[in-house]
Amino acid sequence: MDTDPIQSAALIGLDWGTTSLRAYLFDGDGRVLASRTSSMGVMRLPRPADLGGCDDAFEKLCGDWLEARALPVIAAGMVGSVQGWKEAPYVRTPADLAPLARGLVPVRSGRGVDVHIVPGLLQDGALPNVMRGEETQVLGALVSDDALRRSPRALLGLPGTHSKWVFVEGGQVTRFFTFMTGEVFGVLREHTILGRGMQPADEPHDAAFLRGVDTARHHGQAGVLATIFSTRTLGLTGQLPAREQADYLSGLLIGHELAGLSAVLSAEGFTWPDWTLGLIGDVSLCRRYRMALAHAQGLDVPMLAQTTEHGLFHIAREAGLLGAAGALS
Amino acid sequence: MDTDPIQSAALIGLDWGTTSLRAYLFDGDGRVLASRTSSMGVMRLPRPADLGGCDDAFEKLCGDWLEARALPVIAAGMVGSVQGWKEAPYVRTPADLAPLARGLVPVRSGRGVDVHIVPGLLQDGALPNVMRGEETQVLGALVSDDALRRSPRALLGLPGTHSKWVFVEGGQVTRFFTFMTGEVFGVLREHTILGRGMQPADEPHDAAFLRGVDTARHHGQAGVLATIFSTRTLGLTGQLPAREQADYLSGLLIGHELAGLSAVLSAEGFTWPDWTLGLIGDVSLCRRYRMALAHAQGLDVPMLAQTTEHGLFHIAREAGLLGAAGALS
Repeated sequence: MDTDPIQSAALIGLDWGTTSLRAYLFDGDGRVLASRTSSMGVMRLPRPADLGGCDDAFEKLCGDWLEARALPVIAAGMVGSVQGWKEAPYVRTPADLAPLARGLVPVRSGRGVDVHIVPGLLQDGALPNVMRGEETQVLGALVSDDALRRSPRALLGLPGTHSKWVFVEGGQVTRFFTFMTGEVFGVLREHTILGRGMQPADEPHDAAFLRGVDTARHHGQAGVLATIFSTRTLGLTGQLPAREQADYLSGLLIGHELAGLSAVLSAEGFTWPDWTLGLIGDVSLCRRYRMALAHAQGLDVPMLAQTTEHGLFHIAREAGLLGAAGALS
Repeated sequence: MDTDPIQSAALIGLDWGTTSLRAYLFDGDGRVLASRTSSMGVMRLPRPADLGGCDDAFEKLCGDWLEARALPVIAAGMVGSVQGWKEAPYVRTPADLAPLARGLVPVRSGRGVDVHIVPGLLQDGALPNVMRGEETQVLGALVSDDALRRSPRALLGLPGTHSKWVFVEGGQVTRFFTFMTGEVFGVLREHTILGRGMQPADEPHDAAFLRGVDTARHHGQAGVLATIFSTRTLGLTGQLPAREQADYLSGLLIGHELAGLSAVLSAEGFTWPDWTLGLIGDVSLCRRYRMALAHAQGLDVPMLAQTTEHGLFHIAREAGLLGAAGALS
């Protein structure tokens, strides 16, 4: 690199969650020129997020970029929650790029730069659902993946602490589910009797993981509150070694998550192959979901990369933040 | 009481779990003459259970009774687990009173008295299930309740940290399920984001509890990993006050437990009314299950009292521990 990337920069994008903050420097075509990561998530700031904590973190991570050049700034994630820098009210489903771009909420930094916060999505009803940050990843996937963009029916999985499964119909996010699979796995392992019998895995035990998936699928009728106890009883009866129990439990929970989605699809007359599928997020976690979907449904589900970057750039462009140069690209 | 109960005593029965130890003094007809409770559960002993801890606790709680008179002793619960005084190997289902009585495991106390430990029950298979203590309650319910004893098909619920639902067919325990409902409720409230939005209830919120039951029943298709997130989102959207969220979550989990049982029954061509039902255990918890079953299934399920006492006495009698006097009663 013999040229300073800041010279061709057109946008700063922030991926700002509860535990981390990532900053991207984009050119006018959406290429990432540079990126930086810090642990300054909105829940880990030394000062309250809305009382200078976010401003400090933003200045620390991006101050030199802004010193060199005035740039528009967009941010997505929990930074827009009540606990964040400034609340960006949820946009209701169904929604595509346009209402998210219209819903950007600016907050003025100490340096005098407006940071434009992407609103989250809300699906109302008996089981309301909310997301903050994932809407940007889903839009990023749609703009960057031809098969997804062209599909009349896409279903995107975003595994994590709270896994999201997002239905995109006719280019719009119509509805989504939140499965607390990751967080439930963590507390079962750390704080219940199931964890007491476990030993740390010496290596990934894929067979134990898939055994859990199968149990959820073939013996899951009574529900996950019943099947999880088998982690302990298979151990007690000498049928599941202590080092494999965590992988088995992970497979059980992910298996129940996928069985829940199967039930939803089936009630609507659909099968999995009726949907264009994709997985977004942490690679090792996506790998588990890929394995489970291949094993239980015979599906080969692609993993989609750099969706946050694509999403941030395209929402900013849709909102006109890039000015004339960006709008032409 | 102008006579010392020890004069007519015929048996000491111990209900010995992980967190508490209860001792009963029975006469030869199974009447409870006296009872004592302590917090000396097998997981709360100052010394390891099998290295004098249990012996100390037993002597402390029952020493004066045994000083006054030699009495047979029977014990049920986690005292017979690997972590207890001495392991009493599981009896396999199907099982009734006889194999449990034959399976008693004696352990000699420091005083020279044999404590006869009731074995737990094991149901083997893809989802093995185990119980220790509940088998005694179930047998106690069967011997003390005419309707249950005469029924060809009884289904007994024992709500708790790990709820058991026990199928009794032709007088034998044929199979059972373990739902980790109580423990999962505890860790969700204490250790996940769901608890962060909650405030302690000022009073029981039965309407919120039943709302949770209804959500599990009518919107529970995606499974409990998905529906629990509504505890948070109904709060975020102003539809569920913080003080009602714990009751709502409790209703959701119990609703999913009962829906799981409904699915099991339905797959076998049964409905709830095909079974003679009963609830055993903590009164306030049984009340929740009664409410849920009345609300969702229109059932009036009786609560069964003193099942542990009945069970301990009848297993001891079946095993011949009471001697000639007991055998005649």
